[in-house]
Amino acid sequence: MARLDELARFSAEPGALTRLYLSAEHKAAARCVQGWMQEAGMAARIDPVGNVVGRYEGQRPGLSALLLGSHIDTVRNAGKYDGSFGVIAAIEAVARLQERHERLPFALEIIAFGEEEGVRFPVALTTARAVAGTLDTAVLDARDENGISVREALEEFGCNPLEVAKAARRPADVLAYVELHIEQGPVLENEGLPIGVVTAIAAASRFTGEVVGVAGHAGTVPMTLRRDALAASAEMILAIERIGRSAPDLVATVGRIEAIPGAVNVVPGGARFTLDVRAPSEAARDAGVARIERDLQSIAESRSVSVTLVRSYDEAAARCAPWLVDQLAAAVERNGIAPLRLPSGAGHDGLAMVALCPIGMLFVRCAGGISHNPAEAITSEDADIAVHVLIDMLEHFAPPGGAAH
Amino acid sequence: MARLDELARFSAEPGALTRLYLSAEHKAAARCVQGWMQEAGMAARIDPVGNVVGRYEGQRPGLSALLLGSHIDTVRNAGKYDGSFGVIAAIEAVARLQERHERLPFALEIIAFGEEEGVRFPVALTTARAVAGTLDTAVLDARDENGISVREALEEFGCNPLEVAKAARRPADVLAYVELHIEQGPVLENEGLPIGVVTAIAAASRFTGEVVGVAGHAGTVPMTLRRDALAASAEMILAIERIGRSAPDLVATVGRIEAIPGAVNVVPGGARFTLDVRAPSEAARDAGVARIERDLQSIAESRSVSVTLVRSYDEAAARCAPWLVDQLAAAVERNGIAPLRLPSGAGHDGLAMVALCPIGMLFVRCAGGISHNPAEAITSEDADIAVHVLIDMLEHFAPPGGAAH
Repeated sequence: MARLDELARFSAEPGALTRLYLSAEHKAAARCVQGWMQEAGMAARIDPVGNVVGRYEGQRPGLSALLLGSHIDTVRNAGKYDGSFGVIAAIEAVARLQERHERLPFALEIIAFGEEEGVRFPVALTTARAVAGTLDTAVLDARDENGISVREALEEFGCNPLEVAKAARRPADVLAYVELHIEQGPVLENEGLPIGVVTAIAAASRFTGEVVGVAGHAGTVPMTLRRDALAASAEMILAIERIGRSAPDLVATVGRIEAIPGAVNVVPGGARFTLDVRAPSEAARDAGVARIERDLQSIAESRSVSVTLVRSYDEAAARCAPWLVDQLAAAVERNGIAPLRLPSGAGHDGLAMVALCPIGMLFVRCAGGISHNPAEAITSEDADIAVHVLIDMLEHFAPPGGAAH
Repeated sequence: MARLDELARFSAEPGALTRLYLSAEHKAAARCVQGWMQEAGMAARIDPVGNVVGRYEGQRPGLSALLLGSHIDTVRNAGKYDGSFGVIAAIEAVARLQERHERLPFALEIIAFGEEEGVRFPVALTTARAVAGTLDTAVLDARDENGISVREALEEFGCNPLEVAKAARRPADVLAYVELHIEQGPVLENEGLPIGVVTAIAAASRFTGEVVGVAGHAGTVPMTLRRDALAASAEMILAIERIGRSAPDLVATVGRIEAIPGAVNVVPGGARFTLDVRAPSEAARDAGVARIERDLQSIAESRSVSVTLVRSYDEAAARCAPWLVDQLAAAVERNGIAPLRLPSGAGHDGLAMVALCPIGMLFVRCAGGISHNPAEAITSEDADIAVHVLIDMLEHFAPPGGAAH
C-alpha cells in the first residue's frame, strides 16, 4: 500500500494523479518500478515501447516464462490502484518467493505496461500489442493534442522507435499472462467477496451518434413545428438504456453529449453523443447494437430528424483460458474464499495479450465499484489476500501438457 | 434591401456577419446609419451608450416624439435582417415623408440600439434600458470574454460612461415606441401573411439544471446499479418537451447540455443543461415552470439522483398597448392584409422600452421562420409592404387623449 502511494506521486499535476504514456512522470515511475523489481531479485529493463520488464529466473536459467503484470499509465485525475496495483502486487509476490529462496519450474516475468488507457494518443493497448507482436506501426504516427507523435515521444522517452518490433515476445517463450486488477465495478462488493476470477474481457464497440434536426429560436418556434435534435437524442438515450437493461451482462452507455449550436435560446438543430456497448461475447454485443440501431432509426423517423451511428472502436471479447480460470479459482478456494467467476466489462492489457498466449485475471474488490476517480480505493486486507492467492497460484501453476517442466 | 446588404458588411469576420456591441464594426455601422438618417432629413447623433438617434421634426420643432427603431448589434454568424431591418425600414419611411415634404403633428425619432442580443457582455437590452432610464449602472462593470468592461468599451467607442444617464428620455417627450422586426418564427409563413401585429413580448425565464448521480465505469457497472445523471436528464428533457406542448403559446427548450465528466467510457455522474421557458403572460410561464419543477423532482427521485434548477434570467411579459395594436392592425387592414395578432416569443428592445412609454410591434414574415442564422431571409415585396404599412400607420397615428396635437 505504501508503494501504491509512492507511485501515485509520479504525476503531471500536484495533488492529483495523471500519468500519461511516455511523459516525464511515466519515465520517473518506470525507473522507480525497475528499482523495485531489482530489489525483488529480478533482472529489469525498459523495452523498446517503454514497458518495464523484470525477469525472475526459474529452477534453471532460460525457462519459458509465466508473465504477470498490468499497466502504469493512468487516466486524467485517476485513482491510485487501476493498473499500478497489478504491477506492485506481482512484485510483492516475487519478493516473497525471493525471501524464501524459492525458484519455480518456470521463469516469472513482470511487465509494467506503458500504455493501456488510450488517453494521451488516440490509440489504446499500444504496449501490450507490441509485446504480443500485433502492433500496427501506423500507431507510431498517432499524435497527442500537442501534435507530438508516438514516434517522437518514444525518442524523447529514450526508446528507439525503429526497434519497436523487438518488444514482441515469441509464443514459445511464454506460458501465459496473468493479471491482477481492481474490479472497477460493484459486483464483488455486492457479493461480499475480496477477490473474483475473470471469465472473459467483454467485447466492446463504440460509436459516435449524430442527430440532425432543424435549429430554431427558442421563443418563436411553436413546439408542434419543432424538429429538435436534442429532444430526439433524449428519447434515444432512454432507448439505449432500456436495451442495455434488457439482457444480462449487456451494458450500453451514453457518456458524452453536445447540442448544436448549444445556446440557451436556440432549439438544437443538431446533437452528437457517444455510445459504448459491451457484453461478454461478440454475439451478445452485436445483438444489442442491432437493437439500438433499429430503435434509434425509428425514433428519428417519428420525429422527422436523421440519425447516424458511426463505429469508432471495436474490440472482440478476450476469453480467459478455461484451465487458467480453473487454476485461479482453485487458488482462491484454497484461501478459503468462494471462487466467484465474473466477466470484465472493462478492457485490460489481456485484450492484446490473448493474441500471444493464454490469459487469466483476478479481480480485487474496490470500494463502491469506483474507478478512474481519485476516490478509487481497496483495503490493505484485500490487497494482502490478492498477493497470497497469486503466490499460491504460482506455486501450483501447471500449464496443460506440462510445458513448464 | 441594398442597404441591408451594405450594413451586413460591417462584421468582425469576412464572409459572415458578427457585429457585437461597441466593437469597431459596430462603430462603423453606427456611422453609416447616422449618414443614412441625415440623408433622410434627420438630425442624427450618437448617444452616451452608443445608440444612433435621428430626429425628424414634426409640424413645429420640439414636439413630443413617436420613437421608431430596433437594434444593430447581432449574434455571432448572424442573418442580415434581425434588428437591422427595423432600423432601415424606419429610415425608409422617414425618407419617403421627407421626399413629399410631409411633416406630422408630432416628431419622429429613430433609434438604432447598440445592444439587444446580449452576446458580447453577460447583459442584454443595455441600450434600450439606458433610453428608458432603467439601466442599473452595475452593468457598466460587466466584462466580455477578454476581460474588457462595458465602461472601457464605451470609452474606446468614443462615449463617456459618466454620461450614461443622459441617454434616458423623459416620458413627457415620447408618445410611444414602435418597432418593425422579422418574426424569427414560422407562424406568418404558415398563415401565408406578409405581416402581423404583435400583442405582447413573451415572459421568459431561464434556468441552469444540474443533475447529480454517481459516475462509474461504462463497462463494469451493471445497468441495474447505475445512477446515470445523463439518462435522468434525458427523461427530464422529454418531460420538459411534453409540458411545453401541453399549453398553447407555451414553449420550453433545452438548448445546451453537458455530461460530466463527459467521456465515452464513463457513466455520467453529473449533467448540466439550460432551460428556457416562455409564454405570453407571466402566469402562463410560471405555471409551466412549476409543472416542470415538479416533474423533474419526481424523475430525480425515481432514479435516485438529485436535480436543482437555478433561475438565471427572468423577464416579465411586455404587453403592447391595446390602442397601438388596434392602430397597427388598422394600417395592416387598410393595405388589404388580414391583421393577424400574435405574441412574440423572442425578446426585443420593447421589453425595456415599455418602462418608458406604450409599445407596439409589427412582425414581417421570414423564410422558414429561420433567424440567428446566415440563412435568415425576407423578400423585398414583404419589406416594401412593411414600410408602406408603417407610413400608413404614422399618417394615422393618434395617441389616446390626442397628446400629439
